[in-house]
Amino acid sequence: MSTSASPLTAAAGLGEVLQLFRGRPSLTRADVMQLTGLSRSTVNQRLDALLGAALVVPSGEGSSTGGRPASRFTFHRDRGVLLVADIGATGMRTALCDLRGEVLAERERTIDVADGPGPVLSAADSQFRELLSEAGRDAGEVFGIGIDVPGPVDFDSGQVVSPPIMSGWDRYDIPGWFAGRYACPVLVDKDVNAMALGEQRTFYPDVRQMLMVKAGTGVGAGMILGGEVYRGADGAAGDIGHIQVTVEDAEVEPVCRCGNTGCVEAYAGGWALVRDLRAAGKEVTTVDDAVALIRTGDVTAVRLARRAGRIIGHAIADSVSLVNPRVVVIGGQLARIEEQLFAGIREMVYRRSLPLATRSLQIVATRLDNRSGLVGLALLLADGIFAPERVEALVARG
Amino acid sequence: MSTSASPLTAAAGLGEVLQLFRGRPSLTRADVMQLTGLSRSTVNQRLDALLGAALVVPSGEGSSTGGRPASRFTFHRDRGVLLVADIGATGMRTALCDLRGEVLAERERTIDVADGPGPVLSAADSQFRELLSEAGRDAGEVFGIGIDVPGPVDFDSGQVVSPPIMSGWDRYDIPGWFAGRYACPVLVDKDVNAMALGEQRTFYPDVRQMLMVKAGTGVGAGMILGGEVYRGADGAAGDIGHIQVTVEDAEVEPVCRCGNTGCVEAYAGGWALVRDLRAAGKEVTTVDDAVALIRTGDVTAVRLARRAGRIIGHAIADSVSLVNPRVVVIGGQLARIEEQLFAGIREMVYRRSLPLATRSLQIVATRLDNRSGLVGLALLLADGIFAPERVEALVARG
Repeated sequence: MSTSASPLTAAAGLGEVLQLFRGRPSLTRADVMQLTGLSRSTVNQRLDALLGAALVVPSGEGSSTGGRPASRFTFHRDRGVLLVADIGATGMRTALCDLRGEVLAERERTIDVADGPGPVLSAADSQFRELLSEAGRDAGEVFGIGIDVPGPVDFDSGQVVSPPIMSGWDRYDIPGWFAGRYACPVLVDKDVNAMALGEQRTFYPDVRQMLMVKAGTGVGAGMILGGEVYRGADGAAGDIGHIQVTVEDAEVEPVCRCGNTGCVEAYAGGWALVRDLRAAGKEVTTVDDAVALIRTGDVTAVRLARRAGRIIGHAIADSVSLVNPRVVVIGGQLARIEEQLFAGIREMVYRRSLPLATRSLQIVATRLDNRSGLVGLALLLADGIFAPERVEALVARG
Repeated sequence: MSTSASPLTAAAGLGEVLQLFRGRPSLTRADVMQLTGLSRSTVNQRLDALLGAALVVPSGEGSSTGGRPASRFTFHRDRGVLLVADIGATGMRTALCDLRGEVLAERERTIDVADGPGPVLSAADSQFRELLSEAGRDAGEVFGIGIDVPGPVDFDSGQVVSPPIMSGWDRYDIPGWFAGRYACPVLVDKDVNAMALGEQRTFYPDVRQMLMVKAGTGVGAGMILGGEVYRGADGAAGDIGHIQVTVEDAEVEPVCRCGNTGCVEAYAGGWALVRDLRAAGKEVTTVDDAVALIRTGDVTAVRLARRAGRIIGHAIADSVSLVNPRVVVIGGQLARIEEQLFAGIREMVYRRSLPLATRSLQIVATRLDNRSGLVGLALLLADGIFAPERVEALVARG
């Protein structure tokens, strides 16, 4: 039996050198030599290729160390643009971003994801065209498109798989839809993965294990494990909405949208709250209505919100026991009823999980609010486009 | 906001070069140049240092490519030895291993972990001394000691933390106990982490996401995520024995060893099976007795075993929903009642988890049986001792 070789021994190629620039404001040739251990001639060769493709550009001069000042170089973030669309059940956000994945301009509109991929992707694309046009950019300058959706995605193929709430999307070829319209890669991911990355990179860059729970119409989770988005073997990781829970006051286990009974979201998802509030005679139609009613302090609504907190907390406690994160971030519409929801969540987590797992645990509300998906998706896309193994081809294309 | 730099750009130092040898039978200087991108002079310098420390040795000559045959070099697996002890609740296995982490000789004996760290570690050490003596090795040749225990471990400090079944072990300094006896690093880990690595490296080297469930006296899990042992933020990951489950036929939620009620292992751990069999009038004392009775086909015992399978299956289904592994391996004493237990486990996993997560999932019994912890611990220790960042110091010590 052999032990596996370390990937650290790979020679620093074009992609690795570009990574250095992506992670820093600027570098000199000497910096690159020092960081990579490459010879001066190899560094010059790599840098010439990146300068030739305009992925790196001169950025002025560095500090002198006696002789003439060293030239500095920087990642050319405006060499092109990225387009991203964060698709929810009832709304969509789109953005134009620079090549570092920073949002330059964004749009928001309502949609119904159940209208199916044709209408929804058309709506996204018409916003993309507007964003490009306003920025004076054209489709040829788009380096990559990122789409996230509220359902399971086979990350390698970019296909949505058996989505419970996205009728017409099963196995739909989203990258194929864009292929005739743009000549660039298309990344498709679950919304919760993008949300997790958005929160982690922005507010918890040193946290290596984070659980991002989206408590909206449904309940799901994205995870950062070992500092990276964790998707599991098939892209199905983080499916906490369909963990089965015990609810003592429930006379009958409610039927879930997935076809099972007793799932977390069948009790505590936004859709279940609306169902229960209506059954209690309240005039609510949407999850936003339910949230608004809870925030008025209506006794029935608050009681249901606390119960939802305990049930979501049960699933989070299981997740904490299993993956032992440092931070749990709660997002989605229900996170706006913070007080009532969080009490229940914290109660269950501290009651159920090992002291070792909770002693340094933070349970917090999203700070990017409903922009976490958009922000994270742009970063995910930038990382994907400039993954070291792809840079060779980008440079060859020029 | 910046993106993180790739670790790939690190120059290949001594540690990275040694890694190459650890992962392969043998290499020439030209192989090392090609794999690392380092210059001939740097490769010669690194190799001379490793040859000087006798961590690499000549292994004969390679194939000629026209000129004189190239010298081949190999990792010096017999330069020293490793000692490992896999400590269970009632038994212990110890082994002497080479520096690749392959077991050369092993011992087994009964212990009671609740006797506390002094007696148990003394028992381990007396086996270590026997193993060394029989192999004609002395304590000065020991490069590292690995200990695994059936409880939570703070991996960085090597301390056992709040172990439910290991009285007297809380915060005990296991590395400190060995420090006066051996001049080498001591690694302490949870048994399930070692078991997971043992199974994965031996039988599923290409699987990147694996869940290893130990169903013995208690119930726990180790995980391989992204190809590596996953421990979580505090070393508490994999604690599936204390996930709370719904059991319809239970009149009262049983009290668990952890102080909570309704935990998986309070229904389905070996200790709970013994409790329930005794309550049903069966004469069993140990988990092995319970397993033996189930294997005779006793109707009450088989019924309890199937129920235990469904309950453990519930926790595994939650874990599959959350981490989406490719393979679930079941070990521990209860895995020996394979037929009755596995039916229940599979039933729950396929009923509860997303089709996307189960379409390629394998649920299998351990193949290393009760040696998985020992085998994995030795590999974990070898990886730790020769982690690239530690090799510099090893070489300096000579």
